[in-house]
Amino acid sequence: MSTHSDQSAVTVLGLGPMGRALAGAFLDAGVRTTVWNRTPGRERDLVERGADGARSAHEAVAASGLTVVCVVDYDASDAVLRSDAVTAALKGRTVVNLSADTPGRARETADWAAAHGIRYLDGAIMTPTTTIGTPAAVFLHSGPEELYQQHRPVLEALGGSHTHLGEDIGRAAAYDIALLDIFWTAMAGYAHALAVARAEGVTARELTPFAQGIAGILPPLFQQSAEDIENGGFSGEGNPITSAASSMAHIVHTSEAHGIDAGVMRTAEGMVRRAIGLGHGTDGFSRIAEVLGRR
Amino acid sequence: MSTHSDQSAVTVLGLGPMGRALAGAFLDAGVRTTVWNRTPGRERDLVERGADGARSAHEAVAASGLTVVCVVDYDASDAVLRSDAVTAALKGRTVVNLSADTPGRARETADWAAAHGIRYLDGAIMTPTTTIGTPAAVFLHSGPEELYQQHRPVLEALGGSHTHLGEDIGRAAAYDIALLDIFWTAMAGYAHALAVARAEGVTARELTPFAQGIAGILPPLFQQSAEDIENGGFSGEGNPITSAASSMAHIVHTSEAHGIDAGVMRTAEGMVRRAIGLGHGTDGFSRIAEVLGRR
Repeated sequence: MSTHSDQSAVTVLGLGPMGRALAGAFLDAGVRTTVWNRTPGRERDLVERGADGARSAHEAVAASGLTVVCVVDYDASDAVLRSDAVTAALKGRTVVNLSADTPGRARETADWAAAHGIRYLDGAIMTPTTTIGTPAAVFLHSGPEELYQQHRPVLEALGGSHTHLGEDIGRAAAYDIALLDIFWTAMAGYAHALAVARAEGVTARELTPFAQGIAGILPPLFQQSAEDIENGGFSGEGNPITSAASSMAHIVHTSEAHGIDAGVMRTAEGMVRRAIGLGHGTDGFSRIAEVLGRR
Repeated sequence: MSTHSDQSAVTVLGLGPMGRALAGAFLDAGVRTTVWNRTPGRERDLVERGADGARSAHEAVAASGLTVVCVVDYDASDAVLRSDAVTAALKGRTVVNLSADTPGRARETADWAAAHGIRYLDGAIMTPTTTIGTPAAVFLHSGPEELYQQHRPVLEALGGSHTHLGEDIGRAAAYDIALLDIFWTAMAGYAHALAVARAEGVTARELTPFAQGIAGILPPLFQQSAEDIENGGFSGEGNPITSAASSMAHIVHTSEAHGIDAGVMRTAEGMVRRAIGLGHGTDGFSRIAEVLGRR
């Protein structure tokens, strides 16, 4: 275990599935890597692969100029970073927080870091653990450009694409929230669809290739919606909101007729019916975003 | 306007955006096509392209051995098909109903057709109007195999892939409902994400490439979920339900802090928290489908 700071080394705090993937990718890329986890034992195979296993979080952060934090949320990262010993050890060093939470928590953490002489970048990982170290990984970063550029070579050892979204420290978390909103809503829809399909005698295996086809039609529709919104067009030609409402009602009806809770779709249908009630029935679905966002 | 039945000809009832796309694809493929729409005028450009414009629905269905119906739902298709004149004219002919509704309505329509000597197939179109006539179109069919095979050559003039899902007449509608469930839930998530992103100063245009990336990670996750369900595994290794709940709470909090309704995500989070409460917190997200489907 080295006790001096090394600018080309990295410390990974948090060895859940994602933290372990990050540490493994750093090791594979030949970056000197120190690891620590609140619950001991998780570092064992990483140490076998060449990582330094620190005995404490403050010893871990003291070992590297750059500490990458990946824990469940900012309550968890606060619990590690804001102990007196860790805060003191981080002075003059850089923290990249890749834990997921709200933009507000990211901004608040940046304020705390600034007050303690800690250099701070915030980030988000948009792809599953299996992508880490591969070209498929997607990382978002925000915070001071110069600080990002300084640590970029080490961060890029994680593979994939890295995008610096700007100096607003909350920006990576804002993208993260919006993208997870799409992701988890879609996954909720998929889980519900599997339940309804099963009640109709259609297995998950039978439905899946077609479900994958549905995922495939989303990207051009996302593009179209974004253009509608930027242009203020909201054109419903070919697919008005009223037709979405009709589909949604069929889904709710079929689900509930099988005794399957349709709460998510009921709520989505309510959102759509409200937009129709406001006079937007012939608009395209992108109008929903505008109605939701009205102040 | 021909008045004799032609086995290699087709009649299209309903000239909304999808019906017009279907009729156009038949015409482009050189299929003799008769068109009719409840509200007149919609047939004009199709007639210019070579379609026969019928003066009434019963005249339209009498012109072809095969009638394709594509209207908003089965209330609308009933209103056309179940008039005495149309029902009489359809005797001995085939109807393919590509309108969207519930599996129950499809089964009920098949019963009506059988009682009136009308041969009946049910179907669903899973892709947007712009795909019709192209390899990207996806059509699902169900009903008697022999009847499907008889009309398959004309149906395939619509381009794309055609899958016969089996003899259960409700099966195409069941797939349709399940797939639209995924589609509209995902679109609701996208619309909400755009509203939240905008409140955070992120434009639709900025978010879209990353949103498209999220759509890109869905297919392998759908595959994994389907396998989990078929195997009864529900493994949460790497991504337990508790971590979904944590993300969902961040999304709800960020949305509502901006005054943006988060009802869809709140309901999805409730569904997930209920699964955790039932002891499935360390399972994977596929457990949600199983919990929803319990009788």
